[in-house]
Amino acid sequence: MSSPSVVAVSGNPRAGSRTLGAARAAAERLAALASADPAAVEVVDLATLAGELLAPAHPAADAALARVAAADLAVIATPVYKASYTGLLKAFLDLYGADGLAGVVAVPLVVSGSPAHALAGEVHLRPVLVELGAVVPARSLTLTEAQLADLDPALDAWLARAAAPLRRALGLAAGSAHPTAAAPAAAPAVAPAAAPAAAPAHLAGAAR
Amino acid sequence: MSSPSVVAVSGNPRAGSRTLGAARAAAERLAALASADPAAVEVVDLATLAGELLAPAHPAADAALARVAAADLAVIATPVYKASYTGLLKAFLDLYGADGLAGVVAVPLVVSGSPAHALAGEVHLRPVLVELGAVVPARSLTLTEAQLADLDPALDAWLARAAAPLRRALGLAAGSAHPTAAAPAAAPAVAPAAAPAAAPAHLAGAAR
Amino acid sequence: MSSPSVVAVSGNPRAGSRTLGAARAAAERLAALASADPAAVEVVDLATLAGELLAPAHPAADAALARVAAADLAVIATPVYKASYTGLLKAFLDLYGADGLAGVVAVPLVVSGSPAHALAGEVHLRPVLVELGAVVPARSLTLTEAQLADLDPALDAWLARAAAPLRRALGLAAGSAHPTAAAPAAAPAVAPAAAPAAAPAHLAGAAR
Amino acid sequence: MSSPSVVAVSGNPRAGSRTLGAARAAAERLAALASADPAAVEVVDLATLAGELLAPAHPAADAALARVAAADLAVIATPVYKASYTGLLKAFLDLYGADGLAGVVAVPLVVSGSPAHALAGEVHLRPVLVELGAVVPARSLTLTEAQLADLDPALDAWLARAAAPLRRALGLAAGSAHPTAAAPAAAPAVAPAAAPAAAPAHLAGAAR
Repeated sequence: MSSPSVVAVSGNPRAGSRTLGAARAAAERLAALASADPAAVEVVDLATLAGELLAPAHPAADAALARVAAADLAVIATPVYKASYTGLLKAFLDLYGADGLAGVVAVPLVVSGSPAHALAGEVHLRPVLVELGAVVPARSLTLTEAQLADLDPALDAWLARAAAPLRRALGLAAGSAHPTAAAPAAAPAVAPAAAPAAAPAHLAGAAR
Repeated sequence: MSSPSVVAVSGNPRAGSRTLGAARAAAERLAALASADPAAVEVVDLATLAGELLAPAHPAADAALARVAAADLAVIATPVYKASYTGLLKAFLDLYGADGLAGVVAVPLVVSGSPAHALAGEVHLRPVLVELGAVVPARSLTLTEAQLADLDPALDAWLARAAAPLRRALGLAAGSAHPTAAAPAAAPAVAPAAAPAAAPAHLAGAAR
Repeated sequence: MSSPSVVAVSGNPRAGSRTLGAARAAAERLAALASADPAAVEVVDLATLAGELLAPAHPAADAALARVAAADLAVIATPVYKASYTGLLKAFLDLYGADGLAGVVAVPLVVSGSPAHALAGEVHLRPVLVELGAVVPARSLTLTEAQLADLDPALDAWLARAAAPLRRALGLAAGSAHPTAAAPAAAPAVAPAAAPAAAPAHLAGAAR
Repeated sequence: MSSPSVVAVSGNPRAGSRTLGAARAAAERLAALASADPAAVEVVDLATLAGELLAPAHPAADAALARVAAADLAVIATPVYKASYTGLLKAFLDLYGADGLAGVVAVPLVVSGSPAHALAGEVHLRPVLVELGAVVPARSLTLTEAQLADLDPALDAWLARAAAPLRRALGLAAGSAHPTAAAPAAAPAVAPAAAPAAAPAHLAGAAR
């Protein structure tokens, strides 16, 4: 493909939220990973669409829905409200028809005040994206509010595992030029760089 | 890569169960999709390991764990017991250490007596596989017992969406030669990741 | 307590929806079960609040939030959108502060087009209500659209199990005057009328 | 009823685990809450049944299943393995037939190494117990390993909310004599079901 298009969506009801900032930062890292221009990342701040999302007509939301559906890669970000994604984000996603995100590689991003809600990305947000037909090859990215001040360490740790499957999902070779590429080039075709997949090693001392 | 290795795991407590049959059939279809030899699909029937899975030593299980961890593609199948996967399957997966399935592309397969439990694959089984580091790019494959007698229609319908992301996750080109490629206009939503995803069409008639 | 107050909430974006009708019908049955006046059931149709739910000020929504929080028993109903509750419903619930539904006995009601989404009540909606501090003693009530034309059989079947724990949660004696009271008065203190709790019987033929 | 019977179940594969200790401690507190004798709490350590749980015949497990099904109140405890309950626990619960826990008031207890898995009780374990017909009126009790050394503060905090609905579910008056009843103004949010639930207070400062 030509350079993949990347979009960041924030479901935080406050415009210009830190959730949006985290989504943009993650999207820019992912754009670089996909050899796209980080400056070309598009941002959809659902807070600015709140006034029409639940209205019968919602032209600005329609435009945003189309932009996300047309993206190659979308970071779908939400703060944790009531142990799940926000109603604002869900109201936006509800406007899609069946398989409205088919062909989109999606990354759930959850910002939680407490680490106790870290599973919300996997058990609540990811199934919605999958239902919409998105491909979600990597783990959800979960950030606590304490991590928002300095995102790079958290993004690095997440990308160490997520980079390879995301690149593959975009039709790119998995192994090249991602932030953890310091891992030996020997990293086998399927395995993320950080996981040498030496099977017996995985089995040692299994269950706590 | 060379031809991907494919393994099918059944978490049904009855040896030689229909769950196993469905897992094998799905794995053979996926092997063909990945240009691998369907006859080379390996099968792990956890029913045959039940005697040692919860025991302090479990050499046969260790061998099975290593085989699954070394596979490129694994179908992880379970009947629905108490609205989730079986304890047998979870006892097997519990034996992995952290990221024990890193580098494996996994397909959750859930066989349910009632369609009411169809979400179990997405909300219960998939998060376990993701926690283990597996890449789960496609929707869970959910089969009702009524569908087991004639699997191909259900597999065809599922592959229409699942083939492209699974091929990509394996590092193969998404578009070529998959079983439903001949499917005509009937499968328009199959949009591979790079497709232009005619956005307005996705938005029509959104929410019921 | 005096006669419990009962409220029905519909999270369907269409005003006067069948979801609302089902929520009202369930609430009326529950009012009767609690020796309250079915005609006194209050109804909150979130479709009529959609215009302000995501706005900075939302006085009508505030009034509705207070009515639900003050109820003894609340039926919280939603159609299934994208395999979960609607954004409209979540946007309403997001307006509560921590433990905003403390002291409310809640019944999740999910209306799904396909039985395949029946788990949404238990895995998605219930955890939100629990997070808000509601007590959810009974199973979610799940209705397919096909059941909406004649609700009573589905409500009867659900109440056979749900009546006793709901009555207890309201501080009422579990055994009296509920629709399945034909079950022998001998039904022991804890056991729902339909479940004689003869332990060995529960164990027979356990796993399919 | 006469004094309720209370049982604690541990799904930790290690016999005499800290999970078991936490389950017993919680069960003893709950026995006191229900005016039962804490010394009469029964304990089921599934680690001791591991050898037969997945076997065709499992007489000791059958006895344990019957004891739990006959209890008025059961604490069902598990460590978090792979972001969910253990296979050992699920293998035990799988042996029940439909509604095998009908009439039992159940408390999910999850012990996690990381707070990031705190939702496992609500989204994974609770639905299994509900599917089995148990009544789960209170929030799951989630403990991190760091809290195991001094359980009382965590149990106190949890009981401040959980005591009233649990007492009601057991057919006891909610307000009396529970361990936190002496707690002064510090526990205002404990609002028993019948409390007036000063609604405006719940709404303040809603969404973060």
